Amino acid sequence: MAAKPLPVVSAFGWVPDFAKGRVRDLRIRWALEEVGQRYDTFLLDASKPRGDEYVAWQPFDQVPAYRDGEVEMFESGAILLRIAEDHSGLLPTNQQERWQAISWLFAALNSVEPSLMQLATVTLFYRDKPWSADAAAALMPFAQKRLRQLSDALGDKDWLAGEFSIADIALIVALKSAEDGLIAEQPRLAAYRARAEARPAYIRALAAQMADFSDTRPAATEGA
Amino acid sequence: MAAKPLPVVSAFGWVPDFAKGRVRDLRIRWALEEVGQRYDTFLLDASKPRGDEYVAWQPFDQVPAYRDGEVEMFESGAILLRIAEDHSGLLPTNQQERWQAISWLFAALNSVEPSLMQLATVTLFYRDKPWSADAAAALMPFAQKRLRQLSDALGDKDWLAGEFSIADIALIVALKSAEDGLIAEQPRLAAYRARAEARPAYIRALAAQMADFSDTRPAATEGA
Repeated sequence: MAAKPLPVVSAFGWVPDFAKGRVRDLRIRWALEEVGQRYDTFLLDASKPRGDEYVAWQPFDQVPAYRDGEVEMFESGAILLRIAEDHSGLLPTNQQERWQAISWLFAALNSVEPSLMQLATVTLFYRDKPWSADAAAALMPFAQKRLRQLSDALGDKDWLAGEFSIADIALIVALKSAEDGLIAEQPRLAAYRARAEARPAYIRALAAQMADFSDTRPAATEGA
Repeated sequence: MAAKPLPVVSAFGWVPDFAKGRVRDLRIRWALEEVGQRYDTFLLDASKPRGDEYVAWQPFDQVPAYRDGEVEMFESGAILLRIAEDHSGLLPTNQQERWQAISWLFAALNSVEPSLMQLATVTLFYRDKPWSADAAAALMPFAQKRLRQLSDALGDKDWLAGEFSIADIALIVALKSAEDGLIAEQPRLAAYRARAEARPAYIRALAAQMADFSDTRPAATEGA
């Protein structure tokens, strides 16, 4: 019998310093580390378009994309769900808790991450524009409100859905779009993040992403 | 044997005119109409906070939240997935096509909707601010790029994952965050939207949402 092929995760071989440790393939590496599943990476150059063949796999030309022995797919949230259905330990088995975790998986990606990303877009990509500070001041309360609601919902629980799940993986990586000071305003969230980032699987996943980054920007776009 | 209770969807009993027909409970009503599942609504007042009991159901104090005979949950994407697992016809059964549809479900919510929403936030909520036009001009290319990529991925297909699925429901409602002119730049997307919005289940769902809106803003906040 042929051995089942290792799953493959697409990732970048180089990114600007600010993005290191934050690229979304981290979610997939983390989930696979949690269940002890080895994987291969398919490394891409973040400094130029990846071409039609990759776009057929990942329609937005981003990472991560994923394939295992059976399916080829994209979007970190969807891939997390696939891995959780393929392996035990990443979603509760009780139906109510399972659907709470899936609710939180979507909430991390659709209710939390966008409010942090739109603020980061303005403060990071447009920081030199005259309107950047005013726009950031307007968007800040949205981000703060989301983090406050998130902290209230977490309450005294260790993890969003009771036990650790893919919802926590999605959310912790979403929180990387916020400045540390914004998280620090919510002590429960700061403690939750520290708890998550102390997990051996997270530490291994982060180290693996960092190890895949080349020190030098690819020559083809040097000076671009 | 007791009859299985109807599923319950939370929705608003009043919203400002610009939001009518766009509130995200539309996704749930549409999915339920597609499978012929009757439902009850739990109507809320959009003009004031909903209170602790509702927040325990929907942590961000938004709509939709959902409960059926077995689980209580939130987030439109998660609820769509729940309904698709409970009823046939909303996700392909072939594994590769099923996971493509789930990839697109997440893409609609995490890769498309946020780029349209951040533009809408600036042009709608801050249109009277001196920085609004400059910020909108900066964010516009992100939204246009996403719609172009989406159009390329759709190609000549009728639906995102081959057959109609919850991915189409999520995406069509996400497109409501864009100005019509932006969609019109991509003729394939405009045709795709027209095809989706001609489905009888969509028409019934939209009519049901509109019928639940009261004509008058709740008295408690009149003049607020």
